[in-house]
Amino acid sequence: MATAGKVIKCKAAVAWEAGKPLVIEEVEVAPPQAMEVRVKILFTSLCHTDVYFWEAKGQAPMFPRIFGHEAGGIVESVGEGVTDLASGDHVLPVFTGECKECPHCKSAESNMCDLLRINTDRGVMIGDGKSRFSINGKPIYHFVGTSTFSEYTVMHVGCVAKINPKAPLDKVCVLSCGISTGLGATINVAKPPKGSTVAIFGLGAVGLAAAEARKFGCTEFVNPKDHDKPVQQVLAEMTNGGVDRSVECTGNINAMIQAFECVHDGWGVAVLVGVPHKDAEFKTHPMNFLNERTLKGTFFGNYKPRTDLPNVVELYMKKELEVEKFITHSVPFSEINTAFDLMHKGEGIRCIIRMEN
Amino acid sequence: MATAGKVIKCKAAVAWEAGKPLVIEEVEVAPPQAMEVRVKILFTSLCHTDVYFWEAKGQAPMFPRIFGHEAGGIVESVGEGVTDLASGDHVLPVFTGECKECPHCKSAESNMCDLLRINTDRGVMIGDGKSRFSINGKPIYHFVGTSTFSEYTVMHVGCVAKINPKAPLDKVCVLSCGISTGLGATINVAKPPKGSTVAIFGLGAVGLAAAEARKFGCTEFVNPKDHDKPVQQVLAEMTNGGVDRSVECTGNINAMIQAFECVHDGWGVAVLVGVPHKDAEFKTHPMNFLNERTLKGTFFGNYKPRTDLPNVVELYMKKELEVEKFITHSVPFSEINTAFDLMHKGEGIRCIIRMEN
Repeated sequence: MATAGKVIKCKAAVAWEAGKPLVIEEVEVAPPQAMEVRVKILFTSLCHTDVYFWEAKGQAPMFPRIFGHEAGGIVESVGEGVTDLASGDHVLPVFTGECKECPHCKSAESNMCDLLRINTDRGVMIGDGKSRFSINGKPIYHFVGTSTFSEYTVMHVGCVAKINPKAPLDKVCVLSCGISTGLGATINVAKPPKGSTVAIFGLGAVGLAAAEARKFGCTEFVNPKDHDKPVQQVLAEMTNGGVDRSVECTGNINAMIQAFECVHDGWGVAVLVGVPHKDAEFKTHPMNFLNERTLKGTFFGNYKPRTDLPNVVELYMKKELEVEKFITHSVPFSEINTAFDLMHKGEGIRCIIRMEN
Repeated sequence: MATAGKVIKCKAAVAWEAGKPLVIEEVEVAPPQAMEVRVKILFTSLCHTDVYFWEAKGQAPMFPRIFGHEAGGIVESVGEGVTDLASGDHVLPVFTGECKECPHCKSAESNMCDLLRINTDRGVMIGDGKSRFSINGKPIYHFVGTSTFSEYTVMHVGCVAKINPKAPLDKVCVLSCGISTGLGATINVAKPPKGSTVAIFGLGAVGLAAAEARKFGCTEFVNPKDHDKPVQQVLAEMTNGGVDRSVECTGNINAMIQAFECVHDGWGVAVLVGVPHKDAEFKTHPMNFLNERTLKGTFFGNYKPRTDLPNVVELYMKKELEVEKFITHSVPFSEINTAFDLMHKGEGIRCIIRMEN
C-alpha cells in the first residue's frame, strides 16, 4: 500500500468532553508499530459500552478520546513482527485480545488474555504507552484498543480477528462485540440441554443474542413491574420450581441476584453477562448454592477473539445465525451522533455507522 | 425372619433433651410399613450433623429423639411394596433418599429427591406421619429418616443403599455420609483436571475426603491465623493468581466467600459443601463472577444414594479408596457418649460405635 509506513490523515469522530456530541475532525494516524496493525474501518456500530464511557459517570474521565469497538474493516498495513495478518485482510476489531502465549490463552476454558484483556482505563497502545492518534501534534486517547470511530485505526494484532473476506462487513461488524457476547453466553457457558427453560434478563442486543440460540425463540415475556412478588418467585411458579438456565444481560445487581435465584435447584445454571456497577454487591443465602445451583460469569461469551470469532462469522455465512434482525438503523459517519440519540431513547437495537457514505 | 411383622424390643440411645448425654433405653420398634424396611444396625458412627441437631442451638428442639445417620446394617424385614431389598441384604442407611420417580431422581445432574430429600425438621415416617419408635407407648422422634443409634431402625426404602455383602460394615459404614460427601464434591463436582491446584477449606472428615482424590495428598497447609492478609490473597500469591479449584467444607460464611474468591479467574471453580448458618449471607463483588469464576454447591457429593453409593463401596473393595485412616476411634454402644466427647474436643476424625459388643 502506498500509505504503509506513513502517517495517514483521515476523519475521526472525537469525543472532546464527557457526554458532549462527538465532533468529526481530521486526525493523524501514525503507522503501526511492532505487533500492531492499521485497519481501514468500513462499518462500525454503537454499543452501550461506548456510551457508558463517553458519559464517564462511573469512571475517571479520559478525553479527548476516540470511541468505538464494534466494527469491520480491511488491513491497510502491518507493523514489525506481524505474520498472521497482511494488507487486504478482512477483519473484525475486538475490545479484548488473544496473545496466544499466556496461561489464559493456553487454557481451553478462559478467554481472559493476561496481556490484552479489556482495559477501559488505558488510552494508549500497550507497546510503547503512546497514542497513534493526534490532532496538530496533540495526542487523542484510544478506547479499549480499538477506537473504530475513525476511518483508520491502529490495533494490537492480538485484538484483530481475520475473517472470511466474502462476509459482508456491513452485517458481520455487529459480531465483534454484543451479539457474540450474548450468543456465546448461551452456547458456550449456559449450554442449555434441548427442551430446557431459559430465562433471559434484559433484551438489548446481548439478551436478544442470548435468545438467538433459539432464533429469538422467546415464548413468554415477564415484566417485573407487572408483579407484586419477586420475579424469581414468578418465574419459579411458571416453571415448576425454577428455570433450567438463566442469562443475565443487564448488569443491574438486583437482576443478577434474581437471575441466580430463579434457577431450579438440583441442576440450574445462571450465567452473568452484564457488567455491574463498581460498587455493586452480590448477595444471596448460601443455601441457594448448596441446593446445587451454579453461578458463573462470562466475558465476551467465552469466545477467544482470534480463534473463535472467524467461526461465528461462518455461522452467519452458513445461515445458522441471523444478524440482519439486530440491525435496525444505519447512518453515514457524518451523522454518528444520531446513533447515540437512538440508544439514549432505547430505539432499535444496533445502528450501523457507514464510514464511506 | 421370626421377627418379621412383629414389634422388636431392643436397645437405642435416646436423646431426651438438647445437649444432655444420650441414655441407652429399651425401645419398641414397630414393623416396617409400605415402602419401608427394618434394618439391624451393626455399626454406626458419629457425624457433626448429629451433634448439631442434638445441641439444638440453631433450630426448634425435637425431643426425645434417636439420632444417628452414618451406619451399616442388615435388612431384618421389608414392608409392603418393597421389591429392591430383602431380609439379609447388607445396606448403608442414607440421610437423604432417592425415590427414582421425581424430576430430580430422573435428572442426571441432581440428587435432591423431591420426596426424600433431607428434612431435619421431620421426626416421623413420611408414609403415615408416625414414629416407629416408642417407649411404653410414647413415641420417640426419628432423625433424618435413619436414626441409626438403635439396634433396629425403620427407614423408607429410598433411604437405604444395598451394597456388596463382602464389604466390611465396620469400615464402609463411614461412607454413608461425610466421606462420600467430601469425595463426591471433588470427583463429581469440582472435577479438577490432572495437575490442578486445589484448596480445601476445613480438614474434618469431609475436607479430608475431598483431598482423598489425591489420597490426602495435601502439600501445603495454610492457617488463616498465621497471616495478616485475607486468606484468598495469600492463596493467590502462592498459586500465581489463584487456585484452579476450591472445596469449602466448614460451612463458615467467611470461609465460603474466601473459597470462592481464591479461585483463578478464567477457569476457577469453587464448590460449597459445608452447611451455613440459617442467617448467613454470601456476599461478593459480582465482577468476581464476570471474570469467569464458577461457584456451585453440592449436597452429599452429588451422589444419588441408591444408585451411586454401592459404587463408592466398590471403590473401597478395589482398594482405590481408603477408609481406615478416617477411623480413629471405636467404642461399644454402651459408651456412645464418648464419641460425642471426642468430637467436642476435636480429637480424631471418625469414631465407630459397635452395636453388638
